[in-house]
Amino acid sequence: MQELKDFIRDIPDFPKPGIVFKDISPMLKNPSALKKTIDFMAEKLTSLKPDVVLGIESRGFIFGGALAVATAKGFLPARKPGKLPYKTDQVSYDLEYGSNCLELHIDAVEPGQRVVIVDDLLATGGTASACAELIRRQKGIVAGHLFVVELSFLNGRTKLDPDPVYSILDY
Amino acid sequence: MQELKDFIRDIPDFPKPGIVFKDISPMLKNPSALKKTIDFMAEKLTSLKPDVVLGIESRGFIFGGALAVATAKGFLPARKPGKLPYKTDQVSYDLEYGSNCLELHIDAVEPGQRVVIVDDLLATGGTASACAELIRRQKGIVAGHLFVVELSFLNGRTKLDPDPVYSILDY
Repeated sequence: MQELKDFIRDIPDFPKPGIVFKDISPMLKNPSALKKTIDFMAEKLTSLKPDVVLGIESRGFIFGGALAVATAKGFLPARKPGKLPYKTDQVSYDLEYGSNCLELHIDAVEPGQRVVIVDDLLATGGTASACAELIRRQKGIVAGHLFVVELSFLNGRTKLDPDPVYSILDY
Repeated sequence: MQELKDFIRDIPDFPKPGIVFKDISPMLKNPSALKKTIDFMAEKLTSLKPDVVLGIESRGFIFGGALAVATAKGFLPARKPGKLPYKTDQVSYDLEYGSNCLELHIDAVEPGQRVVIVDDLLATGGTASACAELIRRQKGIVAGHLFVVELSFLNGRTKLDPDPVYSILDY
């Protein structure tokens, strides 16, 4: 899958000075690269035997939506505060500077349901582990995590232990 | 497709008092309802003969991503300001109160490329017509618009004239 790296563009100093952002736009735009990405994720997803696919706002919606449809599952959106219209449960988590918050509808996950969490990027793992906490609060089971890009030097994977984690491209 | 209305939930007073929000969460969560929705949209999309699928942040990413993969097209994200990492072009548009802004990467659309615009909701048409303007500025062709829900009493469709507009559920 390393040939997919040709479709990832480095953007220096985004979102902050000193950070090199991995831009997935060229991969999304190329039908064959996008299909390869989803095919790989769908194969891993199927092995995790989930009942439902959760996508994290916003880029996780692109991959999560595509994966849910490609594997005939339902889709759950995890969103930033104030975006979900019905009653929500929320969890705060720390970022490098400051904190952030993620919400799920209170009726999103059914007890015992296996949920796979999908996002574009695994960095520190803060967002994904917050999402896992929301699922467990609703008595759901975290079937695993799927990412397109993993920044493995940030060790985010350890924060998701012992849930299975798959990513396509490692930096 | 009217049976899909059983999977749309009314949320009173969201996002503001007096507004009844059409919540698509139950439809997303149900594998068969989600598949029916994407199948319908994919059929219309194919008839518009696009080269690429554009999804509008955030819920348009769910449907746009799924449609791009289901129809073997590439995907372009249109985002809120400051979210896209590379150089962008942006357009402001009026809302009922205040204004909003939408961005595309400057290299998103190739000249002559046919782009179909996907979002969950057609209300006043402001967001979708702003998106169409961004595409035309890049010398792209708006192949048409696809929505899940249309609030036809707001007449948003007239703002998108003469581009083809399809929606699944009408209120």
